[in-house]
Amino acid sequence: MLASPYFKKNPKLYYFLPIFYRYWMDSSPMSEEISSIKELINGQNWLAEEEKAFLMEQIDPLHPPRPKTLHSWNSLILQSFDPSQKNLPAIGIELALKQAKEQHRELDNESELAFVETSQKLGFLERNTGFSFQEGHITLTSEHDSATSFDVSALQDILEGNQAALIQKVKSVISAPDFAYVAPDPLIEYRQQVFDWCKILADHGLGSWGFPKENGGKGDMEGYFTIMETLSYHDLSLVIKFGVQFGLWGMSVYYLGTEKHHRKYLREIGSLSLPGCFAMTETGHGSNVKGIRTTATYNHEDQTFSIHSPDPSSRKEYIGNAAVHGQMATVFAKLVIDGIDYGVNAFVVPLRDESGKLENGVTIEDCGRKMGLNGVDNGVIYFDQVIIPKENMLDKYASVNEAGEFESPISSDNRRFFVMLGTLVGGRIGIPRSALTAAKSGLTIAIRYGDKRRQFGPEGGEEVPILNYRMHQRRLIPPLATSYALNFALKYLTDRFLNKAEEEAQEIEALAAGLKAYTTWFATATLQEAREACGGKGYLSENRIDALKNDTEIYTTFEGDNTVLMQLVAKSRLTEFRQEFGDMNVFGIFNFVTDKAMTYVSEKNPLIIRSTNSEHLLDFDFHLNAFRYREQAILGSAASRLKRLINGGMDSFDAFNVCQHHLINVGQAYIERVVLEQFQEKIKSIADKGSKKALTQMCQLYALHTLEKNRGWFLEQDYMEGVKTKAIRKMVNQLCWEIRPDAIALTDAFAIPESCLSAPIAKRESL
Amino acid sequence: MLASPYFKKNPKLYYFLPIFYRYWMDSSPMSEEISSIKELINGQNWLAEEEKAFLMEQIDPLHPPRPKTLHSWNSLILQSFDPSQKNLPAIGIELALKQAKEQHRELDNESELAFVETSQKLGFLERNTGFSFQEGHITLTSEHDSATSFDVSALQDILEGNQAALIQKVKSVISAPDFAYVAPDPLIEYRQQVFDWCKILADHGLGSWGFPKENGGKGDMEGYFTIMETLSYHDLSLVIKFGVQFGLWGMSVYYLGTEKHHRKYLREIGSLSLPGCFAMTETGHGSNVKGIRTTATYNHEDQTFSIHSPDPSSRKEYIGNAAVHGQMATVFAKLVIDGIDYGVNAFVVPLRDESGKLENGVTIEDCGRKMGLNGVDNGVIYFDQVIIPKENMLDKYASVNEAGEFESPISSDNRRFFVMLGTLVGGRIGIPRSALTAAKSGLTIAIRYGDKRRQFGPEGGEEVPILNYRMHQRRLIPPLATSYALNFALKYLTDRFLNKAEEEAQEIEALAAGLKAYTTWFATATLQEAREACGGKGYLSENRIDALKNDTEIYTTFEGDNTVLMQLVAKSRLTEFRQEFGDMNVFGIFNFVTDKAMTYVSEKNPLIIRSTNSEHLLDFDFHLNAFRYREQAILGSAASRLKRLINGGMDSFDAFNVCQHHLINVGQAYIERVVLEQFQEKIKSIADKGSKKALTQMCQLYALHTLEKNRGWFLEQDYMEGVKTKAIRKMVNQLCWEIRPDAIALTDAFAIPESCLSAPIAKRESL
Repeated sequence: MLASPYFKKNPKLYYFLPIFYRYWMDSSPMSEEISSIKELINGQNWLAEEEKAFLMEQIDPLHPPRPKTLHSWNSLILQSFDPSQKNLPAIGIELALKQAKEQHRELDNESELAFVETSQKLGFLERNTGFSFQEGHITLTSEHDSATSFDVSALQDILEGNQAALIQKVKSVISAPDFAYVAPDPLIEYRQQVFDWCKILADHGLGSWGFPKENGGKGDMEGYFTIMETLSYHDLSLVIKFGVQFGLWGMSVYYLGTEKHHRKYLREIGSLSLPGCFAMTETGHGSNVKGIRTTATYNHEDQTFSIHSPDPSSRKEYIGNAAVHGQMATVFAKLVIDGIDYGVNAFVVPLRDESGKLENGVTIEDCGRKMGLNGVDNGVIYFDQVIIPKENMLDKYASVNEAGEFESPISSDNRRFFVMLGTLVGGRIGIPRSALTAAKSGLTIAIRYGDKRRQFGPEGGEEVPILNYRMHQRRLIPPLATSYALNFALKYLTDRFLNKAEEEAQEIEALAAGLKAYTTWFATATLQEAREACGGKGYLSENRIDALKNDTEIYTTFEGDNTVLMQLVAKSRLTEFRQEFGDMNVFGIFNFVTDKAMTYVSEKNPLIIRSTNSEHLLDFDFHLNAFRYREQAILGSAASRLKRLINGGMDSFDAFNVCQHHLINVGQAYIERVVLEQFQEKIKSIADKGSKKALTQMCQLYALHTLEKNRGWFLEQDYMEGVKTKAIRKMVNQLCWEIRPDAIALTDAFAIPESCLSAPIAKRESL
Repeated sequence: MLASPYFKKNPKLYYFLPIFYRYWMDSSPMSEEISSIKELINGQNWLAEEEKAFLMEQIDPLHPPRPKTLHSWNSLILQSFDPSQKNLPAIGIELALKQAKEQHRELDNESELAFVETSQKLGFLERNTGFSFQEGHITLTSEHDSATSFDVSALQDILEGNQAALIQKVKSVISAPDFAYVAPDPLIEYRQQVFDWCKILADHGLGSWGFPKENGGKGDMEGYFTIMETLSYHDLSLVIKFGVQFGLWGMSVYYLGTEKHHRKYLREIGSLSLPGCFAMTETGHGSNVKGIRTTATYNHEDQTFSIHSPDPSSRKEYIGNAAVHGQMATVFAKLVIDGIDYGVNAFVVPLRDESGKLENGVTIEDCGRKMGLNGVDNGVIYFDQVIIPKENMLDKYASVNEAGEFESPISSDNRRFFVMLGTLVGGRIGIPRSALTAAKSGLTIAIRYGDKRRQFGPEGGEEVPILNYRMHQRRLIPPLATSYALNFALKYLTDRFLNKAEEEAQEIEALAAGLKAYTTWFATATLQEAREACGGKGYLSENRIDALKNDTEIYTTFEGDNTVLMQLVAKSRLTEFRQEFGDMNVFGIFNFVTDKAMTYVSEKNPLIIRSTNSEHLLDFDFHLNAFRYREQAILGSAASRLKRLINGGMDSFDAFNVCQHHLINVGQAYIERVVLEQFQEKIKSIADKGSKKALTQMCQLYALHTLEKNRGWFLEQDYMEGVKTKAIRKMVNQLCWEIRPDAIALTDAFAIPESCLSAPIAKRESL
């Protein structure tokens, strides 16, 4: 395209190049953006009609540029790039000037002025995007490093006071070599047991359930999720080992590979005769996975790739199945051809042969003992120029052609990577479903124990079951209600995912990310309550809260750190918002949002904000309106706050950092609304009267307990008065009391196999 | 006393007996109570002066009745007791009538009327205390049992939907015998290592540090706490094993025994040549320890005791040092002489000889693997009529005399037991100090990692240390501030405990209970944040958050379940309240409390409740006044709510249950006020300028973060408006940002030995 005679003839066309480049690089370009660019082009009278047509071609979504073309644009822009240029039009002008100068030509001022003026009108000058071509971008957030402002030892003295000498004495004893920590127990047996269990499941055909029928599976993804969930009643190491083999390793081959890979690998993966890994995370890059540094360099002479870890921070870390059993791995690496980096792609790389001998150039270390999931053999992998054949590239979204050139229907490396990640979103459905199942097990154990365990009582009376105490109810019954709520929400997510249209992808990815974070945090908190609620018995490993809690602990981190995910959700919501409201200013946004939120606030009148009658407090519409109001109002205030900060001159990276806490609430309020909405929807469809009544109470409790948790916000907004939030608290207590007799039955409905529950304190007959 | 001729002469004296009995039985009789009784006696004109004098003698605090006397009163009252009599005067009248009838005499109505009238005036009729003589007391709370109101399988069908068959299939596979859980790894080595470490510490003289000099110690209890705390930088199994041996076993012999026990045991305990246990908790009774059922029956013929576990629920459970190493134990058991139960007393009971062979009649089971503290050998102990000599009774507070009669300076079995427990309150100081130390280790690891770990960054810029992100700061920096606050609060508690006057005992016990609960909950929450903040690295055992978190998990349960402790604190606060305000009615209490709280609320005027200027928000007086207001107002509202419920006819046991959530807040608000007050006090005394500035910021952050956490309450009370709570949130963010550069230095001041910290991610040089 750069070779086109239009550029030679009129160097002013280069004005547009940085804008075009950003448009294609953007990982989710919006229709709003393309219409602005078209307006910009059409607004330039100095362009000939055929020049305009040529420029329009360059941004045609149906004809994206080749990846190599994008790389060449970038190189060209960088040649004339000056870090003081902060916006795309300015960078384009500089580029055009340089190109003209090389042709010994001068450019007229009028065209430049017209270009700048239209750019300004369309908002292209506002966004500081120069950083995309620049290194060393520094912000307040970047520079905020450690710097001691006081004398540490003086403060230490204050802390230690007159005990300093004794403290020192004790320290010297426990720092001596004979106090070195004990080596952990060997994990060999447990890991082998989990592998053997996986083999039994594979023999039952459960491993390949989600694979196509022609590759030995059932072609049933819904069933795959059900299997993961139901296995979660048992050992969670088994669930994760199963998920690594059939979900991550198998599904990456299935979704990122093509027919030839499916034929070659899926049957053996499904039968567990080819154990494998999913090698994405690196020591230096976990959440920011786009930044991984493993390379796959194409060798033209023999049409192979060299897989290589250039430095210690690029070793693959925490890789399940790697330490002992894995024979192959899907490895994510930056593809390099002729020195050009085409971004992250996926490759099948052999790790060890069937006898367990490591392949040449592969080094693996054992991650050793972990807080939980010790039946899974996580490892660290280094590649030292490991050669693999060209066909090992998983080439659904990108490939290297016969001429050794990179080919992809998606021009931008960045966008292509996010599309690839999008196919793997199933992990963010399987994990929360597993987490919820573990929480259900913990609640069942704690509620059964609370129903039988008696302690204290009225003077001269029998001791009372501890589940009759109000605080004990408060610990266990609202989480029981939330378990039910999440059960239906995760079912809804699964259905949406299995039946998604292409344009829904972004919404469903955000929903999965948010529900993953919300559910796994919920599971962690609930298992904590369950442990404390069972006292000393809850601490004994035989009662399984130990394993449930420690095994699921990492669920809040893997498949995406929860805090990072909630920010992604918020950003996705802001994008939808931006699409809807376009270029509105701060006050416009504020008014619009207030209006929109007000549609959910027919109640916001003095009589109702302090209404405390039971019928109102238990009303589904009151609940849902309040949740929707919160969702809209927080989203709107976050948007206007960000806009205010950025308009005020703050770097957008810093602005997002300042609002991080606010953004987490945007994500949370969105998820809570979806959860409540789906729970209410589900209840409408239920015919069985008893179930309907029980679920209605659970739904009311979920809603009111969530409102109670967020009451500070509702009071700040004057959406409720103090009398009302107090009445809500009282109603939560009352509902807990009313539901308590049904508590055992509500856990019985989970129908957890007694052999899996296994905890002696949960046995029906004994104490 | 019952044999006194006064009773024979005038059976109407029996009117008073139930009131006297309750007075002496009460575990903490109050001066308020005794003056009411005196008034009641003096108000009876029908009593002769010498009868009045005789009655006064019976309640003289300097001449308590013997325990056996109290038991005989109880037997006498029960003979005429009718469950329909709900208050003490009515029970007394019935008793007198019965006694008169046996003498074939009648009693005059006038005296009875006068007695009832005065009783009513003094409030003796209000309290429903008949239950103390009655069995089968039933309340709403007692009766609230499981009762299914719907068809469980219908609800299960709803949950499982179209996946039911597959779920069933998976369940049948994982319920098969070959899916039985793997046996846990052996713990032998770890337990031996921890024992050996304890031996090294004993050889350094650290074990006996708190024992008297004449028994081989240093007589330095402050030092004992310092040792426990400093050891907590190392392995926490070691800390608990150390605490069991030298603290629980050693201190129980020291505090509950007398000279002969000290001479016989302390030296060997201090050198660890006599490993022992503290056997209090039973399977059936943990929190309600008063209800334990192990018996120590006195055998007159050979002056011995038989120690016996009458049923499975009375076996001693979770006993540290019992499974492997313990040779003796302090065993808590009900002392029975001639069929009369004299309540819980303590006895030294041999468990096994030096070769490890169990004594006759002793059976011990291993508690097996636990969530944490696996270096401690917890066990279950059964006693089958184990005979011990009479001198093995720890006889500081009670003994059996040569005639085989029970002797004690404290008449009430109940009160005596609480006095004995009171001497052991040191455990509630050692545990929170250990918990805080573990939290400091976790924070140090997470903050060092956050300072080095970089992830994401501005477009085109370097990746940023994750501690620069606002959410990451919010996770780690407020807990850092709270660590400092608790450091000084626990020092204050220790000083108060070491220098306490007798009349301060109740206050200090409540303070210890409250700080134990507050600090251990804080440690659990903080280590959770630390784990998540370190992501996958935080999950690897090598980085030690695993051990810190799981070992301290049980701290919220042992030495008193936190929820139970916080209720004790609240009840103690209500008692102080009752002493101060006496018999005020609900409105009186409400007005009084409002007035009292208003002394802290000079700010509660329209200008200040919405004040958001920084100087005001950072002001120490603003903070402390708000904390004090909350403390007083919650206490007052809990008191008036309880009184309202009870006056309305609710059983007091039910009323306390209804208010349980409220009472937890009473305890928490009290502790938070003390913590802030002591932190501010400490800062006043500091000379070093840099430290003073840093601590001032920590103190402001602790105060504002706590206000933010409680903002729902302050808004409900109209103590603050929404603009102010929003400004507080902003200020918390701002302080976190300002403190962040000092964060490493603030953890350096903890001066944790690097060898103990040990986590690779916390190493200064690496990553």
